[in-house]
Amino acid sequence: VTGTDLDQARARRALELGALDAVGEDPDADVVVVATPAGPARGEIQRALTTSPSAVITDVAGVKAPIVEAIEDPRFIGGHPMAGSEQEGIEGADPTLFEGATWVLTPTPATEAGAYARLRSLVRSLGANPVAMPAERHDELVALVSHVPHLTAATLMNLAADAAEEHVTLLRLAAGGFRDMTRIAAGHPGIWPDVCEANRDGIVETLDLLVAELKKVRDLVAATDRPGLVAMLERAREARQNLPSRVPLAEAAAELRVPVADRPGAIAEVTTLLGELGINIFDLEIAHSAEGERGVMVLVVDAAEADRARTALASRGYRCGPPRVPRP
Amino acid sequence: VTGTDLDQARARRALELGALDAVGEDPDADVVVVATPAGPARGEIQRALTTSPSAVITDVAGVKAPIVEAIEDPRFIGGHPMAGSEQEGIEGADPTLFEGATWVLTPTPATEAGAYARLRSLVRSLGANPVAMPAERHDELVALVSHVPHLTAATLMNLAADAAEEHVTLLRLAAGGFRDMTRIAAGHPGIWPDVCEANRDGIVETLDLLVAELKKVRDLVAATDRPGLVAMLERAREARQNLPSRVPLAEAAAELRVPVADRPGAIAEVTTLLGELGINIFDLEIAHSAEGERGVMVLVVDAAEADRARTALASRGYRCGPPRVPRP
Repeated sequence: VTGTDLDQARARRALELGALDAVGEDPDADVVVVATPAGPARGEIQRALTTSPSAVITDVAGVKAPIVEAIEDPRFIGGHPMAGSEQEGIEGADPTLFEGATWVLTPTPATEAGAYARLRSLVRSLGANPVAMPAERHDELVALVSHVPHLTAATLMNLAADAAEEHVTLLRLAAGGFRDMTRIAAGHPGIWPDVCEANRDGIVETLDLLVAELKKVRDLVAATDRPGLVAMLERAREARQNLPSRVPLAEAAAELRVPVADRPGAIAEVTTLLGELGINIFDLEIAHSAEGERGVMVLVVDAAEADRARTALASRGYRCGPPRVPRP
Repeated sequence: VTGTDLDQARARRALELGALDAVGEDPDADVVVVATPAGPARGEIQRALTTSPSAVITDVAGVKAPIVEAIEDPRFIGGHPMAGSEQEGIEGADPTLFEGATWVLTPTPATEAGAYARLRSLVRSLGANPVAMPAERHDELVALVSHVPHLTAATLMNLAADAAEEHVTLLRLAAGGFRDMTRIAAGHPGIWPDVCEANRDGIVETLDLLVAELKKVRDLVAATDRPGLVAMLERAREARQNLPSRVPLAEAAAELRVPVADRPGAIAEVTTLLGELGINIFDLEIAHSAEGERGVMVLVVDAAEADRARTALASRGYRCGPPRVPRP
């Protein structure tokens, strides 16, 4: 593992801790992970495509469309691991950070299937679950589950801080719920101006939606509408209790072998299709035939979902044989 | 410890677990804790004042003014422990729940000093830090640090649940920040209609404030106002990092002895005054003189705050001697 950082001291510290084997750049790298905010990511990805000519390049920026649209290269695949903490720097590193986490990948029709399979296998080796989706869809969804919650946490914290200037006892009343809700506001603002600029429309739209919903809740309270409040809270409770937790891989898996011929965009289409259907791809491999362009995509999915996956694939013209037990 | 519950099975389970020594009511109780939602609390407090004629009565409802205004009794003091979890019932009990937590008490001019000292010492024995404040102030502050955050968590969760109906992958993108922010929405809605009714004005006012602030944030994002966003997030970050955590008692304590004569309301005035100044009262005792009505209130505070406390007390006509080291 070779790595570098704008902050040389931090790179040296990573070397000392054994997180890196060498500081610098590796022209023979298999995979290059560009881990910068959304702003400088594009330039760094372009540079990595040149300096590591055989590598698959990915990034981890929280907004994907502007990057993925700008870089159409078979060796670049946008990525966004949905894990993190409010801690910074190498001291905040945690070897279990990605275990069971969702890691979004945004292949495009230009994506080379072998490159996708190589990146996917790296993501899996970190314990994360790769989910493929179009970059624009990712941005729309993270506005709702990440960007707007973050801005809301900061807003709540600032409201409380304003009031605390007048009432010094206020913050002593902040119990666990308030602490939980504002925890993410303790993080470094570093990436947020870039995120807000890159995903401006999605965030503005979602904030408008949140404001509209909060006004409805305000009206329920003002009208002492008890059944309305209970219905609102019951629905949220059920949804929160059903929020998928970090799950280990299912026991029963099934293998589907999909001939992909030399059709461009197959990898993006297949992974995105199964992602949209909520079917988790446990493993993915491209088995090339000896004669060149033709190949077979080997998908490993939850056995319970295999028939559904097969039907969906068939509807898009991907004919595969019946599910079988994966090779060990 | 004697206790009862509407649900007899739950009361028996508490007995089995050793949380109770007996099921029922104890006419000789020293302290009765009425632990019901805000709605039925008043009736239960009135009943306890009758059935336990020598006890101090307190409650734990999340809204205090309607209860405290309705029950003017020297033996009743409103309370609100700022601790809890989304778990329910006796199985959710946690012996460390109150350790280091703030426990609001709302004495009034009618409150008997000895009753306050007795309740305070029970609260301290559970490891919590009592903070005295007027009931109205409590309600205003908890709208901001508890009620509105709870309603906001539920609103965010519902927005995500709506979107997830269309995009099944959405909830797989919900990482730690979203989970933290919506955790309280998993709790039982049980108490909330009562809370929203009892603290309606405070909640409506605070929701209006939150909506206004979220609109400002929306405008910052829409205008790509990077310095404005950074300033907003930096301020929230600093406030969140300075949020007092559950702190053990300070090492250095000082004792102040305040003659209280037979002046009504002294206990509420002194505890509320120090609370407003952010001075933590570690211990409080009423030492009655042998001759009856006159007495001395013994306050133990952080040694670093003792002079400030003494000056503030003097400004309200409470003359006390210089701080001294507390008796062991």
